[in-house]
Amino acid sequence: MKWPLLVLGGVALLGLGLILGHFGIPKEAASPVVQGQDQDLDLKILDSVIRQLEASRIRENLRELAREPHLATTPRDEALVQLLLQRWRDPESGLDAAEAPTYEVLLSFPSQEQPNRVTVVNASSGDVLFTCRQSEENLTGEQAGPDVVPPYAAYAPPGTPQGPLVYANHGSKEDFEELQARGIQLNGTIALTRYGGVGRVNKAINAAKHGVIGVLVYTDPADINDGQSLPSETFPNSWGLPPSGVERGSYHEYFGDPLTPYLPATHSSFRLDPASATGFPPVPTQPIGFEDAKVLLCNLQGQIAPNAWKGALGCEYRLGSGFRSDGEFGASSQVNVSVHNRLELRNSSNVLGIIRGAVEPDRYVLYGNHRDSWVHGAVDPSSGTAVLLELSRVLGTLLKKGTWRPRRSIVFASWGAEEFGLIGSTEFTEEFSSKLQERTVAYINVDIAVFANASLRVQGTPPVQSVVFSSTKQIPAPGPGGLSVYDNWIRYFNRSSSVYGLVPSLGTLGAGSDYAPFLHFLGISSMDIAYTYDRSKTSARIYPTYHTAFDTFDYVEKFLDPDFSSHRAVAQTAGSVLLRLSDSLFLPLNVSDYSETLRTFLQAAQQNLGALLEQQGISLGPLVSAVEKFEKAAEVLNQDIATLQKGSPHPLQVRMLNDQLMLLERTFLNPRAFPEERYYSHVLWAPRTGSVTTFPGLANAFSRANSTAPGSAPWAEVQRQLSIVVMALEGAAATLRPVADL
Amino acid sequence: MKWPLLVLGGVALLGLGLILGHFGIPKEAASPVVQGQDQDLDLKILDSVIRQLEASRIRENLRELAREPHLATTPRDEALVQLLLQRWRDPESGLDAAEAPTYEVLLSFPSQEQPNRVTVVNASSGDVLFTCRQSEENLTGEQAGPDVVPPYAAYAPPGTPQGPLVYANHGSKEDFEELQARGIQLNGTIALTRYGGVGRVNKAINAAKHGVIGVLVYTDPADINDGQSLPSETFPNSWGLPPSGVERGSYHEYFGDPLTPYLPATHSSFRLDPASATGFPPVPTQPIGFEDAKVLLCNLQGQIAPNAWKGALGCEYRLGSGFRSDGEFGASSQVNVSVHNRLELRNSSNVLGIIRGAVEPDRYVLYGNHRDSWVHGAVDPSSGTAVLLELSRVLGTLLKKGTWRPRRSIVFASWGAEEFGLIGSTEFTEEFSSKLQERTVAYINVDIAVFANASLRVQGTPPVQSVVFSSTKQIPAPGPGGLSVYDNWIRYFNRSSSVYGLVPSLGTLGAGSDYAPFLHFLGISSMDIAYTYDRSKTSARIYPTYHTAFDTFDYVEKFLDPDFSSHRAVAQTAGSVLLRLSDSLFLPLNVSDYSETLRTFLQAAQQNLGALLEQQGISLGPLVSAVEKFEKAAEVLNQDIATLQKGSPHPLQVRMLNDQLMLLERTFLNPRAFPEERYYSHVLWAPRTGSVTTFPGLANAFSRANSTAPGSAPWAEVQRQLSIVVMALEGAAATLRPVADL
Repeated sequence: MKWPLLVLGGVALLGLGLILGHFGIPKEAASPVVQGQDQDLDLKILDSVIRQLEASRIRENLRELAREPHLATTPRDEALVQLLLQRWRDPESGLDAAEAPTYEVLLSFPSQEQPNRVTVVNASSGDVLFTCRQSEENLTGEQAGPDVVPPYAAYAPPGTPQGPLVYANHGSKEDFEELQARGIQLNGTIALTRYGGVGRVNKAINAAKHGVIGVLVYTDPADINDGQSLPSETFPNSWGLPPSGVERGSYHEYFGDPLTPYLPATHSSFRLDPASATGFPPVPTQPIGFEDAKVLLCNLQGQIAPNAWKGALGCEYRLGSGFRSDGEFGASSQVNVSVHNRLELRNSSNVLGIIRGAVEPDRYVLYGNHRDSWVHGAVDPSSGTAVLLELSRVLGTLLKKGTWRPRRSIVFASWGAEEFGLIGSTEFTEEFSSKLQERTVAYINVDIAVFANASLRVQGTPPVQSVVFSSTKQIPAPGPGGLSVYDNWIRYFNRSSSVYGLVPSLGTLGAGSDYAPFLHFLGISSMDIAYTYDRSKTSARIYPTYHTAFDTFDYVEKFLDPDFSSHRAVAQTAGSVLLRLSDSLFLPLNVSDYSETLRTFLQAAQQNLGALLEQQGISLGPLVSAVEKFEKAAEVLNQDIATLQKGSPHPLQVRMLNDQLMLLERTFLNPRAFPEERYYSHVLWAPRTGSVTTFPGLANAFSRANSTAPGSAPWAEVQRQLSIVVMALEGAAATLRPVADL
Repeated sequence: MKWPLLVLGGVALLGLGLILGHFGIPKEAASPVVQGQDQDLDLKILDSVIRQLEASRIRENLRELAREPHLATTPRDEALVQLLLQRWRDPESGLDAAEAPTYEVLLSFPSQEQPNRVTVVNASSGDVLFTCRQSEENLTGEQAGPDVVPPYAAYAPPGTPQGPLVYANHGSKEDFEELQARGIQLNGTIALTRYGGVGRVNKAINAAKHGVIGVLVYTDPADINDGQSLPSETFPNSWGLPPSGVERGSYHEYFGDPLTPYLPATHSSFRLDPASATGFPPVPTQPIGFEDAKVLLCNLQGQIAPNAWKGALGCEYRLGSGFRSDGEFGASSQVNVSVHNRLELRNSSNVLGIIRGAVEPDRYVLYGNHRDSWVHGAVDPSSGTAVLLELSRVLGTLLKKGTWRPRRSIVFASWGAEEFGLIGSTEFTEEFSSKLQERTVAYINVDIAVFANASLRVQGTPPVQSVVFSSTKQIPAPGPGGLSVYDNWIRYFNRSSSVYGLVPSLGTLGAGSDYAPFLHFLGISSMDIAYTYDRSKTSARIYPTYHTAFDTFDYVEKFLDPDFSSHRAVAQTAGSVLLRLSDSLFLPLNVSDYSETLRTFLQAAQQNLGALLEQQGISLGPLVSAVEKFEKAAEVLNQDIATLQKGSPHPLQVRMLNDQLMLLERTFLNPRAFPEERYYSHVLWAPRTGSVTTFPGLANAFSRANSTAPGSAPWAEVQRQLSIVVMALEGAAATLRPVADL
């Protein structure tokens, strides 16, 4: 039985009313809205949101957020929880609902009674010849408060090792091997290392394997200050790190609460015995400033360090071990590292706020940042929270006025205890893994909103590229020139795309902020948005006061973004991305953009590993075929969407296609691919060793197998990893193909 | 802005036309249909389908399917692939599309050149004193064909062990411990075991741990024939197993292709070296008939077996080891087990056919059965395939006539190589895991359709109970009395439900057929439907000719279901369930029925483990709270559905609720819960040791911990398992709660 087309046409016009009407009073929405199921993104609303985001309000948010240190779970951190709840529950500009659930998580703090101490000691007499600073210099009146946590390496074990000092560069595996190759006795030494090169905890792990009994970590002025190191050249006189500044940080190897891997850290949850928990530094470790590092390093005896190991302390870099006899301390002096950190179970809060979707309340666009800082944390993370609050204010105001409600639900999150290892966000993903995997469209992270004021910088998975591009093309970049954020961005970070030509270059997502559990554990398309450096002007590892007591409001206002225009640009970009994801009829996730990534990974594998694999009888043929199937399926899907967009697709048709788009990223998840890599299940973005930018499982297995005999178990693992990625790509293609294809 | 209700009402009426019209010509459907997005299950269509299912056609299907042996991957198995394709591609009664993809899987076959042989040998002279049959007796002319595979234990390793015989009952752990306790030397012996008690492979695993070098397995007439054992009392004179009948079977410990765990066995897939694959019997193993078993067992010397070990062979059951000196063989005679099985990579086909959904083509109702048999396999599996073909014929005919198209897609499957360990279905779930998890509403399995003709028997997870009940209440039971299938069923299998009072009792799903990978690996609500015994009339382990050369068409027609009315009742039941799942507006999955199961599991844990756990400082409090949350959420969801059903819910509202219903089962999946149990990820239905019917992870961990010291690692694992199930239940409750709740 066929319906005459004429009837169809007539009824179709009338049906629109029904649809709009029906959704005018959505069951789950707190207030009536005008959007209907066929409503696409309203460009006027989008424009209005972008215009209403105010730099001055971001500034005032930041001033309040960074007024006091707010280390995770401290009273000020909890006060900010209340501030967020109050904002999100505001009758004029709040959200539909807000809550602050807590988790009981294992944190690590220095002892107040027994401060950590690094000293130079005469080994025979025990006399203390020199003591490193125990806190940063009070340069602006903000470094001496009772809530400024002294510098420490969170999760480093307590202990008071003492031994001759060696200099070990970054503390990488290769660095310690170099020292050993040079005949330097490492057993029983204290290693002085500098930040950079490898992760914090890895310095201690690598060190301990060579018998090192304590580790110091400092920030070299070469790495953070473009070589400047004098008080006159550093904060408060410039953006540079003062000589006494010390980078704090988590030294835990994994993210998430250390005692509850894969379980939410609820009060009643099973917890590992801390003694059997893994991933803590094996030896006492303490960070120090370069002022103190200079005293230690510049008095070392022994061989001169390789050139690549030299920084800007202004002396010869010698390797040790031990001090030179003609220096400040004498050859028999040793370094004592006294660490008295304590592990404590603490209640850490997340704050969650929701704007319920009018049409598809069961589709979530998540937007989050952490709340906790090491000290005042003006940049990290309060710049992001200041943006978050301004964005939620503008959207909340539209919501409360009744002029707007998103198609999909928007969930804002302020995560706790990120600085200790993304703990609040990870526990959240563990508690709600099913629901989040079923329903989350994307996760937007804005942690440090502004590292510097030169250019946008976005990290993300390929499907978010298109929505970020669309958004940034319509937002004016701060500063003169009248460029869009996009056009400014492309000047700083670009690549030649085989599909689009020259485009801004998106970075990839590691585990540097709260997006990690969403992407790696749950397979949710994610992104991290910020404004950042002009790399022609600085080679600093990161903004210089990172994780120090000098990361203050004044610092931001004087040196990073005086008019807060970069903050505003980030708010506008993130806001536009958020609104497009929540309100567009078809999800603005371009799955085809994965094709380019896969093709790049494939070509890298072919060029760098292909011949060597062939020697082992391993063919990349199935991988080639899988990539081709993916490309084809993505292309056809995009054509189908384009065709539908020209007509008036039915809401269920839209929903079905959107499900394909939303769930694509999930198809790359395989919890059995790398069981030893806690939480890393995404077969495309898991950590990769080696220099070849390709499928991580394949690359890692290859590098382990490469020196083994043909037919060895590591070569079998290469084949297994190849099959795992082929299966993932074939599964992804199957998800993109027409849904009723066999 | 509010829409006046009057306008709403008026437009709503008009909108219906649009909706019907729009879906009158669905994009993906092969032919126009009349169903629309608001269309609920059409009871007239349902009734018509039920009526059109013909017993005589099922009979003719079975005659054809069981005409020849069709062991997996043999020419006749492939011929049946073609038969299925032809039926499903029939222009008058076929489906929208059908395909037959293949996997390359590891099977095990006996050698044709060197038949497996069990002999009694004079240990000194080597003279063969007795040889067991190498094939079953040709009683009906069908047991001697070239395609009848001789009895063997698939995956048992080759070898020719020889030693004194012992009788080991079921070959359980306890059985061998009993023999050991009685001072019977097991080292170097051949163990004769009987089917039942433990899984096939476990007999050999348990035996080898005690030094046993070869295993025989037979079917005792007490267990299969209600004690009858004479030729005159058995087939072809009754349904009983003839003395020469031998149960074949897979002796692999895991399901799925042995060489490709967690990977689809595509041609290019990574394969384990067979030597490093696990789960095969550790020693040569061979099944024999009770005719031969009697000769062996009744000549044993030694102690008399415990009463519970005695069967119906008509002699004393002695334990051995070795033969009695006054018997047929003499005390120095030994048993030689010569096994020459070979592992072979073979191409095995699945056949898949689809009816594309008119409204939600991306929602799949799967209906499957395996195709391969051990010999003719009239009962196992052809009775199910005969039903499958009749059901697909009736639906295909409605489809091709254009009178019906389901709301959701229906996928029919004929799995290959199930007899070797659910291989075809498992590889399918591996290849399409993402897509199937995202989209599958339920999996219906009808393997053996008719074990016997007394009553329906359904195994399934709780959400399918309601749709099975609704279906069976409307279908007349075969035989006199005018009862419905439901009313007949409740007479044979019932339980007292705390919610419903006396209801038929659904069984739970283990891993006995192809539902296993869908339920345990993918978390899809599943069921298995059959007609079965009157347990007051037989205590047979299973129908007597199971996996023998006597499972023929004649056997079915003479002894199981002469008028095929039980087959028809199964077709009607499964067809009704299928149609309700594919066509109902709201999915007929009652998530609330999980509440009763959870409560039962909880109470069992409290009563049996609670006090003992408390002694270890482990509280069930969080589990109580999680169950309560689940109950509450399920109840509220059901109320919401009931309210919506009274009105005219919008298609997207329906879809959102259905997603909650569909995905509930998925929330119980945790691939990290029992990593050592291959494929088992469902925290409620994983294998459970011990007698307490409760959460399997908790029960298993408890039984391992129970004899260890407080604070041991096994007790920590009990706590971890408790947290895993609490997390799953909390996650399930979160999935059922209103979707925009925080």
